[in-house]
Amino acid sequence: MHTGATEVLAVLQQRGVHVCFANPGTTELDVVRALETHPAMRCVLGLQENVCTGAADGYGRMTGTPALTLLHLGPGFANGIANLHNARRAHTPIINLIGDHMSWHLAYDAPLTSDIESLARPVSGWVRRITGTADAVAAAAEAVDRSHDNGGQGVTLIFPADYQAETVEAVRPPGAAADPSAAFTTAPRTDFDVTGCADRLRAARKVVFLLGGGGDTSGLGERAQQAAARLCDVLGATAYAETFPARAARGGGLPDFDRLPYFPEPARAVLDAADLIVLAGAPTPITYFGYDGHPSQLVENDRLLVLGTAGDDLATPLEALADALHAPAYTPQHHDIPGTEDGALTPAGIAATVARLLPAGVIVSVEGGTCGYPFYAASAGAARHTTLTNTGGAIGQGLPVALGAAVACPDRRVVALLSDGSTQYTIQTLWTLAHEALPVVVLIAANHQYGILRNELKRGGQALGDRATGLTSLDRPRIDWVDLAHAYGVDAASVETTGELAAAMTRALDRPGPTLIAMQL
Amino acid sequence: MHTGATEVLAVLQQRGVHVCFANPGTTELDVVRALETHPAMRCVLGLQENVCTGAADGYGRMTGTPALTLLHLGPGFANGIANLHNARRAHTPIINLIGDHMSWHLAYDAPLTSDIESLARPVSGWVRRITGTADAVAAAAEAVDRSHDNGGQGVTLIFPADYQAETVEAVRPPGAAADPSAAFTTAPRTDFDVTGCADRLRAARKVVFLLGGGGDTSGLGERAQQAAARLCDVLGATAYAETFPARAARGGGLPDFDRLPYFPEPARAVLDAADLIVLAGAPTPITYFGYDGHPSQLVENDRLLVLGTAGDDLATPLEALADALHAPAYTPQHHDIPGTEDGALTPAGIAATVARLLPAGVIVSVEGGTCGYPFYAASAGAARHTTLTNTGGAIGQGLPVALGAAVACPDRRVVALLSDGSTQYTIQTLWTLAHEALPVVVLIAANHQYGILRNELKRGGQALGDRATGLTSLDRPRIDWVDLAHAYGVDAASVETTGELAAAMTRALDRPGPTLIAMQL
Repeated sequence: MHTGATEVLAVLQQRGVHVCFANPGTTELDVVRALETHPAMRCVLGLQENVCTGAADGYGRMTGTPALTLLHLGPGFANGIANLHNARRAHTPIINLIGDHMSWHLAYDAPLTSDIESLARPVSGWVRRITGTADAVAAAAEAVDRSHDNGGQGVTLIFPADYQAETVEAVRPPGAAADPSAAFTTAPRTDFDVTGCADRLRAARKVVFLLGGGGDTSGLGERAQQAAARLCDVLGATAYAETFPARAARGGGLPDFDRLPYFPEPARAVLDAADLIVLAGAPTPITYFGYDGHPSQLVENDRLLVLGTAGDDLATPLEALADALHAPAYTPQHHDIPGTEDGALTPAGIAATVARLLPAGVIVSVEGGTCGYPFYAASAGAARHTTLTNTGGAIGQGLPVALGAAVACPDRRVVALLSDGSTQYTIQTLWTLAHEALPVVVLIAANHQYGILRNELKRGGQALGDRATGLTSLDRPRIDWVDLAHAYGVDAASVETTGELAAAMTRALDRPGPTLIAMQL
Repeated sequence: MHTGATEVLAVLQQRGVHVCFANPGTTELDVVRALETHPAMRCVLGLQENVCTGAADGYGRMTGTPALTLLHLGPGFANGIANLHNARRAHTPIINLIGDHMSWHLAYDAPLTSDIESLARPVSGWVRRITGTADAVAAAAEAVDRSHDNGGQGVTLIFPADYQAETVEAVRPPGAAADPSAAFTTAPRTDFDVTGCADRLRAARKVVFLLGGGGDTSGLGERAQQAAARLCDVLGATAYAETFPARAARGGGLPDFDRLPYFPEPARAVLDAADLIVLAGAPTPITYFGYDGHPSQLVENDRLLVLGTAGDDLATPLEALADALHAPAYTPQHHDIPGTEDGALTPAGIAATVARLLPAGVIVSVEGGTCGYPFYAASAGAARHTTLTNTGGAIGQGLPVALGAAVACPDRRVVALLSDGSTQYTIQTLWTLAHEALPVVVLIAANHQYGILRNELKRGGQALGDRATGLTSLDRPRIDWVDLAHAYGVDAASVETTGELAAAMTRALDRPGPTLIAMQL
């Protein structure tokens, strides 16, 4: 039997959508029924919607193709907005399929009725409400197309329950026979002015490259980083990764480009020294928050040279510039990982230990400043790996992104390097990791506080008051992360020294399913 | 020092706002600093924002006055939308205070920038962005006033960080010296036509009263229920509670009014038999979802008599009608609690056991159908208590509402009767219960499935397919609720028989802090 729902699924699959992160409710049950006849669509259940949307972000970052999320009306969708906000900043293609009441039931303002469009727009580059069964197939096809606009974006399709259920002729979308992946391959820019850009680079006194992350040909893909290193070499320039890349290649002989610092003072120290800032996939540098005494935009437009933005092929123009400037070929670089001695855990010790143990090809989802910054520094000397960071600042992103990356890349190990405060927002992810038996190693830096807020509060030398201390403390009671992991069926250990961490991580990397390691700071 | 933030807090306190459920971030730090000088404002930290908003709902339902939520920009607010959706349906006054970027930083679209207004409007009866420090005090005063409109509603105040921080003269709002509670006492309707309504009741063949919940004088307050029982007696009428009351008095000799059934068939059996449906605080009966073959609105307008809506005093008109019809005085009724024998747990056995052990004055937050319906039936014979239910259908509401009720009513015990599926959405609430040492008994009906979805899927006699089974199973792995509670510092037990449940609940009711009891079904 063909229904609106079966045909939507058929179109999505034809266009390369193969995974659905789902938390359905009553108004999505005809999609659930339709899934019975689409066994190739993998369904992954999340126990809270922000798990689903964060996983779709991780999946989309790794594959470049959208996953489907299946969410329950406005309130269910709302639970997933925070991670869609991060995905929006990461330029991740995602398709949100949201059920709604029967179209004829909406006017009665039943308990679950809400303004889904108003909720969806802030995190969706495109929103469409299906207006009838005959409209469903075209809407689904357009959703896939639109998810690749603007370098990748979330799109939202609202699907009233009656249009899911009604039977239809089997419909095939126009042009669906074409190779779905071909349409979304990034084409190198043809209008790129190599000579003009090369002249501008030559004329500059001091150049800084800002590399932005994403797919293989992004500014933080391997080719672009190697080309940037050649340019730095020949120009005496320096290069930085954007502060929070969606996806960056790292280690294994790649150059050790630091991330542009988070706070305005060190960021300005980097940028003010240059008379030319080259944006290769990174956005114009903006302070993360507004800080008195600092401009929001850290570089005036006339010092900027934009090679391309998120979603563009940046590898080709950077290589062309390096060739035009006769830069020598790239030689793989060796970087030392800082040494560690066995002893009480410190962020630096954790960073070095984790970097040393990373197997080649691992994906590392990093959230939380406590270990995130030291790890990035140490990881230049690690085996070749992929780093995913929190792009939008909505916390509770690191663990679901790790889940999605593991679903996307079954042949690769995933490590999630997280902080205790942020991981709580989407803690239910642990259940799905166990349910799907995914080989994710979850490292929790447990310092029992919201450290970033204390750092912000102490800027300017202020002491922490009682309220500030209370509202940034996770200390009373301390969360028992081992019990928490066990509750969700995840293997777990608590470690207090670098030696214990190394042993636990070695064991974890050898296991088939997920493991959580609570690193007591 | 007086800042925009200190003066906003001063105004809120003057107008009766005394509790803040908070999960602040960098853009709320000047509110945090201001809290140092407002020690009377109680701050309760939640580890995820839906904990905060759900707690504010529970607090507002019990006190009739708004709590403050303090949330971090668009993404932090978004995490709390689902429980604000429920609060909107409950007509609960709530004030959301959301920090935003420095006003001059907004245009740069920094990572955490989003359209907060678009996110806020669907769950806020009133939204205002503070446009300067001089505007802050008036905006805060208006927020309190507006939170009492429409029978109680959530309102949202967006507070850019610079206006929080800037110093100001100490300002006092106009007219703030007035008793803040007096303005919000429900006045009895003066336009109520007793004679006309009494005539209409007398003329009807069969009357059904639908009573809606809320404050003391709502249709489900004690006085209104007793008056409705007198009217049923004299008219041969029947009365029902709305299906999901915000707050209902129950037990202790009150009449045993069932809730209007959830599914359309039994609801229509009740309503179609009557030629007059009297709405006393309940909304016009609408099916929860749209169901083929059933109208959305279950009663045509010409069979409706509206005595008042949410927020109105319904006790006074019902009493006036009972007097006009010469109904005898109310006599407290005795209702039996069904007997239980020791043995494996069943929903009916749980319901009777819990009802029997409820101490007088307890507040029961009920979410989840597995035990919710049987408990409501059994609870008529329990000691006098207050029931709070999930008004908007966004699940993950029962535990935060219990938290908020416990903060609101420190002299009363709170029992949360929940299901395993729904409790996962806001599981982080357990930490706050432990942190605040609140005497809440959390009863989890653990059937390891989304039972309501299975019931909906099986309507019409369909078998569950593999996908439907998979997407409604919480069975692989089963969540260990005792480990989960211990992880958050909450005492816990797992029970498998009614005898074990009774013993565990008796112990829990005697403890000073929270206890979780996992009821294995």
